[in-house]
Amino acid sequence: MKVALYPGSFDPVTNGHLDVVERALGLFDRVVIAVLANPRKTPLLPVATRVAVIEAAVAEAGLPADRATVITFDGLTVDAAHAHGAAAIVRGLRAVSDFETELQLAHNNRRLAPDIDTVFFMTAAEYGYVSSSLVKEIAAFGGSVAGLVPAAAVTALHEATRER
Amino acid sequence: MKVALYPGSFDPVTNGHLDVVERALGLFDRVVIAVLANPRKTPLLPVATRVAVIEAAVAEAGLPADRATVITFDGLTVDAAHAHGAAAIVRGLRAVSDFETELQLAHNNRRLAPDIDTVFFMTAAEYGYVSSSLVKEIAAFGGSVAGLVPAAAVTALHEATRER
Amino acid sequence: MKVALYPGSFDPVTNGHLDVVERALGLFDRVVIAVLANPRKTPLLPVATRVAVIEAAVAEAGLPADRATVITFDGLTVDAAHAHGAAAIVRGLRAVSDFETELQLAHNNRRLAPDIDTVFFMTAAEYGYVSSSLVKEIAAFGGSVAGLVPAAAVTALHEATRER
Amino acid sequence: MKVALYPGSFDPVTNGHLDVVERALGLFDRVVIAVLANPRKTPLLPVATRVAVIEAAVAEAGLPADRATVITFDGLTVDAAHAHGAAAIVRGLRAVSDFETELQLAHNNRRLAPDIDTVFFMTAAEYGYVSSSLVKEIAAFGGSVAGLVPAAAVTALHEATRER
Amino acid sequence: MKVALYPGSFDPVTNGHLDVVERALGLFDRVVIAVLANPRKTPLLPVATRVAVIEAAVAEAGLPADRATVITFDGLTVDAAHAHGAAAIVRGLRAVSDFETELQLAHNNRRLAPDIDTVFFMTAAEYGYVSSSLVKEIAAFGGSVAGLVPAAAVTALHEATRER
Amino acid sequence: MKVALYPGSFDPVTNGHLDVVERALGLFDRVVIAVLANPRKTPLLPVATRVAVIEAAVAEAGLPADRATVITFDGLTVDAAHAHGAAAIVRGLRAVSDFETELQLAHNNRRLAPDIDTVFFMTAAEYGYVSSSLVKEIAAFGGSVAGLVPAAAVTALHEATRER
Repeated sequence: MKVALYPGSFDPVTNGHLDVVERALGLFDRVVIAVLANPRKTPLLPVATRVAVIEAAVAEAGLPADRATVITFDGLTVDAAHAHGAAAIVRGLRAVSDFETELQLAHNNRRLAPDIDTVFFMTAAEYGYVSSSLVKEIAAFGGSVAGLVPAAAVTALHEATRER
Repeated sequence: MKVALYPGSFDPVTNGHLDVVERALGLFDRVVIAVLANPRKTPLLPVATRVAVIEAAVAEAGLPADRATVITFDGLTVDAAHAHGAAAIVRGLRAVSDFETELQLAHNNRRLAPDIDTVFFMTAAEYGYVSSSLVKEIAAFGGSVAGLVPAAAVTALHEATRER
Repeated sequence: MKVALYPGSFDPVTNGHLDVVERALGLFDRVVIAVLANPRKTPLLPVATRVAVIEAAVAEAGLPADRATVITFDGLTVDAAHAHGAAAIVRGLRAVSDFETELQLAHNNRRLAPDIDTVFFMTAAEYGYVSSSLVKEIAAFGGSVAGLVPAAAVTALHEATRER
Repeated sequence: MKVALYPGSFDPVTNGHLDVVERALGLFDRVVIAVLANPRKTPLLPVATRVAVIEAAVAEAGLPADRATVITFDGLTVDAAHAHGAAAIVRGLRAVSDFETELQLAHNNRRLAPDIDTVFFMTAAEYGYVSSSLVKEIAAFGGSVAGLVPAAAVTALHEATRER
Repeated sequence: MKVALYPGSFDPVTNGHLDVVERALGLFDRVVIAVLANPRKTPLLPVATRVAVIEAAVAEAGLPADRATVITFDGLTVDAAHAHGAAAIVRGLRAVSDFETELQLAHNNRRLAPDIDTVFFMTAAEYGYVSSSLVKEIAAFGGSVAGLVPAAAVTALHEATRER
Repeated sequence: MKVALYPGSFDPVTNGHLDVVERALGLFDRVVIAVLANPRKTPLLPVATRVAVIEAAVAEAGLPADRATVITFDGLTVDAAHAHGAAAIVRGLRAVSDFETELQLAHNNRRLAPDIDTVFFMTAAEYGYVSSSLVKEIAAFGGSVAGLVPAAAVTALHEATRER
């Protein structure tokens, strides 16, 4: 069974992320969506909310829950990949600025764990300009994020923004 | 059985290309190296030579000949993928300029054939500055291309350059 | 009356080009689509065909024919702008590689004609990966270009490709 | 009357910003310079100072005060555009890194408000390497920023830096 | 005697930085490695540690201690260059994102001090994906940074991370 | 004596090239401007004209003729560097697209000749958008290239264009 780890902050998960999950499911038997619990930048949503939103979004998108599972991790991505039996890390590529950061991470992960490779998918053109940061900024200003993120993320963003 | 098509001009195949084949073999059951017979730019090596060099290089690199096969094609890449039962196209990424061209091709191939996805691997850092064009230019000026291309390509380049 | 010149080879015009024309019409009273008669690279379509395709496409898209006119030119873009009473040159931006070339042209046109400025529009995301070169390559291999170019361009490409 | 909104933090306004205002005045009847009151990053200058500096700079540059007005806003840029009757948002482009961020913002603004388009001008070459961040860093270290920002900004920066 | 200033935060120095020092020594009689005492981002290592690590690394790499000296500075880079008799500033280039920032700094330093030029070296391919930030992130998660930084930096990172 | 080789097609030399020569003279005792006799793309100007234009431009710019010499070469750049006793190759950097090509060439030249390093200078902002190709295109259309190239190049371009 081929397992892939899809690591990220997912603060919140976007439709672009879900597109990557769907593509990875075409190639791998199982995709482990790995939520980085403590990213360096303070997340807007607590890790439990980020996990719940992804699980709701996976169901909402009609993706198979047993093949698209969600876990949390802390530490090195390659350690999480080993812990979950993943032979590959998957990442989406959108723009040139993405590309160089991803290149740096992929080369370093290969150095740390030569048995794990990184596989990239191009994010669909309609999600090419969506990012978690942009979504949070729009939501903070009361703008609509429908179409950019799954329904569960819209609700979570509204709650998080209202509390502030 | 998961099959991937790895299309290119391979004029000649480089060690960077072989690195992509090796990585793709970690993910796919078979990689069909697909040599574009008539690229728009006039190739240095005839298509039969390009095929022979890849086959020799696959053997030289100790890659399994039954899992890394070589074919030629003409026309659309997605048609070649369909013809050879490939569910995915694989490509290597080296630099920013690569990236935008690859993005354009991947989006278009998806438009032409939504059942085929493009999967990208990062070329190993030591081959990040190797390209077929550079190799041909060095060989034309009598420089050494050892370490950049497999032995079979060195021989083919010498012959092609001598004839000119 | 504010007039803009939209220069290009338009070999053939794409839906991305038409998107730029439509946007420019929101800002200018008239957009002069200026077809470069003799670009350095040999065009696939003769200049008369390129003009006819644009005129048909303007009609097809429901754009006002008296506000979106088509001319041909040879020589410097700024000379064509002066000749047609244009106060601005309009161009679409898609990708990073576009951007640097456009920056160079815009700075130079300003040097040659400080009275004419260049105004850029972002090509709509769905046309971000469409270019005349890609369209010609797909058509040459018998692939479908529907959705990428207007109907008149599809016909012209088929005829031009058949003749070859 | 065609109105454009030119949004930014303007912390402080630079000669590059003023160049964009001047170019936009060639195309629009009025340019509303919209100062984002509470940007995510803590600004060096309070919003009232940033507005006063822009007004002084507009006068200093000999731009018509009735056609280049200054307002403050909070929230979505497209809401500010609607509130001030602007049909377009104007932005300057300097470098590749700018370009991708601007592309993302422009696409998203179009999604939120299809009636408002974003129009880009190339910043003049001599201001291509000037940014508010760079100017603040130089001023903080006691370096000269003359030629990069208008006189009013020089004074404001000196005062803000002295207080620290 | 030709002296070059090599400014940076060096938090910590990497093997990529040392590669730049070694290359600069091939061109200059002396390279002054200038550690920015108070960078805007809070450093992980105190300035004294950063200096000690560089001095140990210079010895470890077998570079001549009298030709590769270490100083600290605060303020403008060009002021530090003047203070240490440097006719040039040296910097390494790795990636496209580096490039634009470096371009901006070089142009501005030339504006502030026309007598000092900036000279760039390409970082060796094997260090092209190494940065101080990446190294700190790996170390914080307990990953190995051997091969990326000199031995003295490994020790300093372990101590700094343990304390946290 | 430190000698640098500055290789290029110089078809024709531009003010940006001369700026690089002047900067290199600040660092090296002698700069050998090396004109590639037979570049892959057909040059507009014959090699003898390109050499004569550079020599006239060096005199026109008041650069010392004994320290800025002109030679022609064919073959590998590193062979030309060895032949002329150069310890370094110098190149100018203008834009991102330049950067990646230059990175590839620099890494390869280092592989071919580890004793020769490549040193980069940033082209002055006012010449950042000037290239030999642009200059030829403007001249071909009868536009003014004054300020972009030295006087000798203006004359040579006029003659070459008239003959066509």
